[in-house]
Amino acid sequence: MDPSQVEIPPLKDLTIENITENVHLINSRCPNPRLKYLMKSLVKHVHDFARETRLSTDEWMAAIQFLTQVGQICTDVRQEFILLSDVIGLSLLVDSIDHPKPASSTEGTVLGPFHTHDAMTESNGGTLSHDPDGEPCLVICTVKDTSGKPIPGAKIDIWETDSKGFYDVQYAGRQEPDGRAVMQSDDEGNFWFNAIVPVPYPIPHDGPIGKLLKLLKRHPYRPSHMHFMFDKPGYDHLITALYLRGDPYETSDAVFGVKESLIVDLKTVTPKQAKEYGVAEGCRLLTYDFVLVSDEEARSLREKEAMTAMEKLGLRMKLLDGLPVPDVD
Amino acid sequence: MDPSQVEIPPLKDLTIENITENVHLINSRCPNPRLKYLMKSLVKHVHDFARETRLSTDEWMAAIQFLTQVGQICTDVRQEFILLSDVIGLSLLVDSIDHPKPASSTEGTVLGPFHTHDAMTESNGGTLSHDPDGEPCLVICTVKDTSGKPIPGAKIDIWETDSKGFYDVQYAGRQEPDGRAVMQSDDEGNFWFNAIVPVPYPIPHDGPIGKLLKLLKRHPYRPSHMHFMFDKPGYDHLITALYLRGDPYETSDAVFGVKESLIVDLKTVTPKQAKEYGVAEGCRLLTYDFVLVSDEEARSLREKEAMTAMEKLGLRMKLLDGLPVPDVD
Repeated sequence: MDPSQVEIPPLKDLTIENITENVHLINSRCPNPRLKYLMKSLVKHVHDFARETRLSTDEWMAAIQFLTQVGQICTDVRQEFILLSDVIGLSLLVDSIDHPKPASSTEGTVLGPFHTHDAMTESNGGTLSHDPDGEPCLVICTVKDTSGKPIPGAKIDIWETDSKGFYDVQYAGRQEPDGRAVMQSDDEGNFWFNAIVPVPYPIPHDGPIGKLLKLLKRHPYRPSHMHFMFDKPGYDHLITALYLRGDPYETSDAVFGVKESLIVDLKTVTPKQAKEYGVAEGCRLLTYDFVLVSDEEARSLREKEAMTAMEKLGLRMKLLDGLPVPDVD
Repeated sequence: MDPSQVEIPPLKDLTIENITENVHLINSRCPNPRLKYLMKSLVKHVHDFARETRLSTDEWMAAIQFLTQVGQICTDVRQEFILLSDVIGLSLLVDSIDHPKPASSTEGTVLGPFHTHDAMTESNGGTLSHDPDGEPCLVICTVKDTSGKPIPGAKIDIWETDSKGFYDVQYAGRQEPDGRAVMQSDDEGNFWFNAIVPVPYPIPHDGPIGKLLKLLKRHPYRPSHMHFMFDKPGYDHLITALYLRGDPYETSDAVFGVKESLIVDLKTVTPKQAKEYGVAEGCRLLTYDFVLVSDEEARSLREKEAMTAMEKLGLRMKLLDGLPVPDVD
C-alpha cells in the first residue's frame, strides 16, 4: 500500500485506555465489511484479554514463543494450530455455529488435524484399513435426507487410526494413504466397507500443545472413533464422527467432540450378514444411519440463529453472504 | 499426563451455549493459579469472538492458515508473531501495562522484532553504524533517576536501521552485527556514540503481516527512530525509542509506538562540540535525557494500577508475584 494513498487519523500518545479505539480507527478503512468487523471484534477481545489479566511482558513473550513453536512444528501432515483450536474448544464451537442441525439430522463434530486429500476411492465392500493387527469391523451405513429419502451419490470421506492409535500420516516415510478412503453412496443411499475397530489414542502431544495440556493437568486422549465427512451438492457439508459406547474417554475427550447421538454400540455380524458381506463370522459390526440437512435448511437455520444471537448481544447487524456485519446506513 | 490420574467432569454434548464453562471446568485443575486465570480469560475471549462474529468454518480455516504462515516465516532473525502483536496494538498495550511510568520518567514504547543479543560493546565515543551512506549523527545522552541523580553503569542496548531502512539482520549472509551496540553509562550517567540519522522504513511486509496490512488498507511504515533499552539492577527495565520530529509517518506509525515525549528535534553540533567529540563540523546532533524508574516505584505503581483496573472491571482479585489472580478463599 502506497502510504500517500492512505488518509490516516493522527495516532500518537496511545495509552491502555485509548489504544483500542485508535486501532479500530486505523482498521476502519478496510473496504471489506466482514473483515473489518472480524478485526474489530478480534482487536477488542485481544486488548480486553491483556487488560483483564494485566498481561506481563514475560507472559507476552512466552505466548509469542509458544505460537512460534506451534507454527514451526506444522508440516503438510501435521496441523498444530488446528490441535490448539481443538483443545480450547474453538473447533467444536465453530462447527456448531456454522453447521446448525435440525433435531432430525446427524450432528457434526470436530474435523481434527488428520483429514487428507489423497485417500483412495473405494467401492462398496472395499477396504479402509489394511492393518493386520486391527480387529476387523464391517461398517454398514445409510445416508438420507431429513424426510427419510435416500441420498445417492454422496461423496463420503472416512478416516480412522490403525490398531496402535496412529493415523497413516503420523508415520515417517508414509508411502501411500491407509486407514482412509473416499466412497460414494449407492442408489439406495447405502455404503459399506471393511474397517477395523477404532481404538482410543492421544492427540499428538510431543509438541507445544502436549506441553500446554501437561501444564493444565489434562490428558491428551480421544475416545475410540471413526471420522466421516459428507459432500453432496444441495446438502450442507457434514463433518462428523462415530464414537464407541463405553470407551474410557467417552466423557473426557481432549477435544470436546463427543455427542450422545454419535455414540454407537458395536455389534457382531449375524451368520447371514457374514455370508452376504463376505466377512468372517464373529466380525464386529458398526451400523449408522446418517441424515444430511439440505443447503437451504442449513442456510435458513444458520441465518436465523445468527440474527437471534446478534439481537441477544444487543448488536444491530445485517447479514452479508450469510454472515453478520454491522448494519450501518 | 497419565489419564488415570485425572478426575475429570463428564464432558459430552457440548453446545454453543455451554462449551465455554465446560472448557473452563476441565482447565480448572491447573495447579498454577496465574496460568489458570490466563487460560480462563483467553478461552472466554476466543469463544466470545467466535460467537459475536458467528465465525464460519472457512474463516476459521483461513485464520489457521494465516497463523501457520506467521509461524513458518519466523527464523532466528525474523519474528513475525511480534510483528502481528505490533500491528494490532498489543505490544504497546502490554508495555504500557507492565511498565507504568510516573510523569517524571521516560516513557516506554514497542520493542519491535529486531533486537538481537549479539551487538558489540562500545565505549563512549564508539561507533554504532558503519554505513558509509548514512548521514552521520552524534548522539549525546544522560540517564538519571526520577530525583535527577545520575545512574552510572546502566547497560544500554541501542539499535537502528541503515540508511536504506534495513536492520542488519534483514540482509541475507549477515556476517556480524551493525547498526547496534551495547554501551554503559559513565560515572555521571552520560553516554555518547556515533550513529546515523534514522530514516523511516516499512516493517517487513513481504510476509503474512504485510498481506494483512494490505487487506486493511494500512501502510507498513514506521517513522524514523532509534531504539534504546536500559538495564540496571534496581531499576525497571526500559524499552523505548526516540522519534524525529516532522517525520512523514509521525502520526501514522504502523505499530502505534510514537509518543510526544519521545519525539526529538534533530540539531547540528556546535564547532566546540565537533572538536570535543571528534566529529565533523555540521554533523547532526541528537540529545536526550533518559529517566529510569526504580524497581520499587515501578512495582508499586504497577500493582496499584492493576488493582484499580480489576476493581473497575468488578473482578475480585489478589496479586500473586505482582500479577492478578482470582481471590478465592
